Amino acid sequence: MDSQRMSQQHLLSKIATNDKHGENSPYFDGWKAYERNPFHPTENPQGVIQMGLAENQLCFDLVEEWILNNPEASICTPEGVHQFRNIANFQDYHGLQEFRNAIANWMSKVRGGRVRFDPDRILMSGGATGANEQIMFCLADPGDAFMIPTPFYPGFVRDLCWRTQVQLIPVHCHSSNNFKITREALEEAYKKAKEDNINVKGLIITNPSNPLGTTLDKDTLKSLVNFINEKNIHLVCDEIYAATVFSSSPSYVSVAEVIQEMEHCKRELVHVIYSLSKDMGFPGFRVGIVYSFNDEVVSCARKMSSFGLVSSQTQHMLASMLSDEKFVTRFLSENSRRLEERHEKFMKGLEEVNIARFPSSAGLFFWMNLKSLLEEPTFEAELKLWRVIIHEVKLNVSPGSSFNCSEPGWFRVCFANMDDETVDIALNRIRELVGKETKKPVGIKRWQLNLRLSFSSRMFDESAMSPHSPLASPLVQAT
Amino acid sequence: MDSQRMSQQHLLSKIATNDKHGENSPYFDGWKAYERNPFHPTENPQGVIQMGLAENQLCFDLVEEWILNNPEASICTPEGVHQFRNIANFQDYHGLQEFRNAIANWMSKVRGGRVRFDPDRILMSGGATGANEQIMFCLADPGDAFMIPTPFYPGFVRDLCWRTQVQLIPVHCHSSNNFKITREALEEAYKKAKEDNINVKGLIITNPSNPLGTTLDKDTLKSLVNFINEKNIHLVCDEIYAATVFSSSPSYVSVAEVIQEMEHCKRELVHVIYSLSKDMGFPGFRVGIVYSFNDEVVSCARKMSSFGLVSSQTQHMLASMLSDEKFVTRFLSENSRRLEERHEKFMKGLEEVNIARFPSSAGLFFWMNLKSLLEEPTFEAELKLWRVIIHEVKLNVSPGSSFNCSEPGWFRVCFANMDDETVDIALNRIRELVGKETKKPVGIKRWQLNLRLSFSSRMFDESAMSPHSPLASPLVQAT
Repeated sequence: MDSQRMSQQHLLSKIATNDKHGENSPYFDGWKAYERNPFHPTENPQGVIQMGLAENQLCFDLVEEWILNNPEASICTPEGVHQFRNIANFQDYHGLQEFRNAIANWMSKVRGGRVRFDPDRILMSGGATGANEQIMFCLADPGDAFMIPTPFYPGFVRDLCWRTQVQLIPVHCHSSNNFKITREALEEAYKKAKEDNINVKGLIITNPSNPLGTTLDKDTLKSLVNFINEKNIHLVCDEIYAATVFSSSPSYVSVAEVIQEMEHCKRELVHVIYSLSKDMGFPGFRVGIVYSFNDEVVSCARKMSSFGLVSSQTQHMLASMLSDEKFVTRFLSENSRRLEERHEKFMKGLEEVNIARFPSSAGLFFWMNLKSLLEEPTFEAELKLWRVIIHEVKLNVSPGSSFNCSEPGWFRVCFANMDDETVDIALNRIRELVGKETKKPVGIKRWQLNLRLSFSSRMFDESAMSPHSPLASPLVQAT
Repeated sequence: MDSQRMSQQHLLSKIATNDKHGENSPYFDGWKAYERNPFHPTENPQGVIQMGLAENQLCFDLVEEWILNNPEASICTPEGVHQFRNIANFQDYHGLQEFRNAIANWMSKVRGGRVRFDPDRILMSGGATGANEQIMFCLADPGDAFMIPTPFYPGFVRDLCWRTQVQLIPVHCHSSNNFKITREALEEAYKKAKEDNINVKGLIITNPSNPLGTTLDKDTLKSLVNFINEKNIHLVCDEIYAATVFSSSPSYVSVAEVIQEMEHCKRELVHVIYSLSKDMGFPGFRVGIVYSFNDEVVSCARKMSSFGLVSSQTQHMLASMLSDEKFVTRFLSENSRRLEERHEKFMKGLEEVNIARFPSSAGLFFWMNLKSLLEEPTFEAELKLWRVIIHEVKLNVSPGSSFNCSEPGWFRVCFANMDDETVDIALNRIRELVGKETKKPVGIKRWQLNLRLSFSSRMFDESAMSPHSPLASPLVQAT
């Protein structure tokens, strides 16, 4: 067996055999648990409710209405099929000009029209996943590092590091300070990396934040831009949740807006990652965008686009949809309004049972504080509680440890990928969890017993637990 | 300027600054020359005719007819829009089950039904470009090498090598031997690589061959499988032209068929690359497939699929189209018939003016022998002639040197990306080229003078010529 594995390792690449794709984490394990037993209101009402996937399902009716009113936008209708051969046969890695124009226009609208995006700096990639990797391939060599504030999206380990062999250096942020990205934390992580002879090539931030659901204010953004300017390193801003800001929240500020006001900043160090997977709810369409202010990166990343072009069929349809100003305006305002409404519904439910959560103003998730339910303030206890939640309470929420959070007890809960009826059931289950815990102080121990009884060890070993996850992480412990 | 470039090199990655994407070649320059002055029958009848891009435009009428008869296959029609939200929101990197089933079924049909493909071994990627890179990331580490018979597709340098940093070792094949891939040539290249301390991880072949348009017979395939078996290295078979075999030619043999008959072969060393870009003429849809007989590669490449998934909109439509047995049968037979007909038309035209070409039975191109028109038997003379063809005769054909051919004087000519009227004009231009040459022996010198007069030096420098192309090539000269 061991010699077989050895021989495979010799046969395949280090990337294929090193397990550094980062998918051995409770975040991905939760998806698997859901897939094995998915909730359905009538067919499987005892199944797991998927609250671990940040999907936006709230505005599809608007899109469907638009489609029915615009049959010429499709190459698969009598009205549009005359375009079929040109579109199917199109293979320019610049992308359709009208697609780039429409995306640039949409990105500007999402940011309140206060910043203009240049269609010639719009670079295609296969989803945000591909966009993240693409920018890393452009900016960093194997072994180089990017700093990243915690908590952060678990998929980054795969997207940014797996094939590029770039390292991530966590910049630890804490709830005591509202998870603020401070200059001190940045300097500390940077200094430590230098001491360890690690070549720091940049800082990557998510704004709005996944998993916090917070947005960065102008001053913080300026201070981050100043930091990377002084160090002469890159700033990659993942803005894939830009259109999920709640309607009553202060307007969203993009890094693109901030650098307009900063005369002496080195724009060529700034890059934006974008996608339509979250803001429009189209993850299946694989629209990933790299927007770079650096001419050389634009030229290089454009060639890399050939590895992850958006299907021309999808480009064609979206070009038409996103250049419809009236539709775009309506979609953006409805999307914000419905997300806020849904968020409020959850907040009310949580308040009733005294569950705290981090105050947020954007995103498809909230950051739930279950510290009081932990047996002890450790990540082991967090995973224990998570197993109860997923296997007994049957909610797939994601533990903070999978987001590299520095403090145990936080959980990310997605709220926009279900209908109102499912929300009520999910809220009931959360109430049940807390009820059990508050009424029976030995609850967790009891649950663990139940867990041992009710789940086969095979299932337990295979994916529900990930004991090797921390070991397999490409994270450099810089602080 | 130099210090600026230095600082950029420090700022960006080696991949971004090393120019090893292989796009500085006459192959890609020809595309640019076409783009600057594209032929149009009425609007630009003096423009360059694109014969450098292997596009299949001959069967779009069949596809359009199918689409109009199957409106429920689209998520953008009243009949199909109820599926929109499920499809747009789909993001499983296994792909839609019905899509994988349909692709497996199609691949089998293309190979005459003599081999069955397992849908669970179908791995998605962004076009053949992404598929080629994906398999390299799975099989080889930076610095490792794959052997590749010449002449070969110029894009391989970008696809296989640029980001993976894998090397290519040419296995030189010669017209004197009908460009056959001999055991001797393989052994020689392999031995030389070993002497140079290069770790050879595999052999990559294209079948049908691009640019030769030939198919490999069963015996040759078996001998290649035996070779890689003995050396314990991988065999990657690029079969993206499998359905372009002419109708009157012997049936196409896939490596998948051959290994069925070879009891003791190590199947886990064999991988097939596939795509719908050439066989169906859908390069815009970015359907790339890795089909591997190696379980570990299947598992690893499936995770890598997240960088280049096919748009679910496109998956959904193609799933429906390719599971229509009647349509598939008709398409395949018409495609073969029309390609052969078009090929014949060209062959007849060339025979009239005594231009030789390599005998082929598949593909969207033929391999034209213009050795007799060379001033001298060198690659410089080949490029000189190519410049005349592209700038004066105004045909974008691709010189053999860009395909790493060992002998000067060959040109690849694509024939399936135009209508019959354009074929006639192209044939007239070829006749003109030969006419000039045969009647006026000093022709080439005169053409070069003209070239100097009629093209600005800027254009000349920027892309029409690529003096740095051989220097930038990642090819290892192993023989």
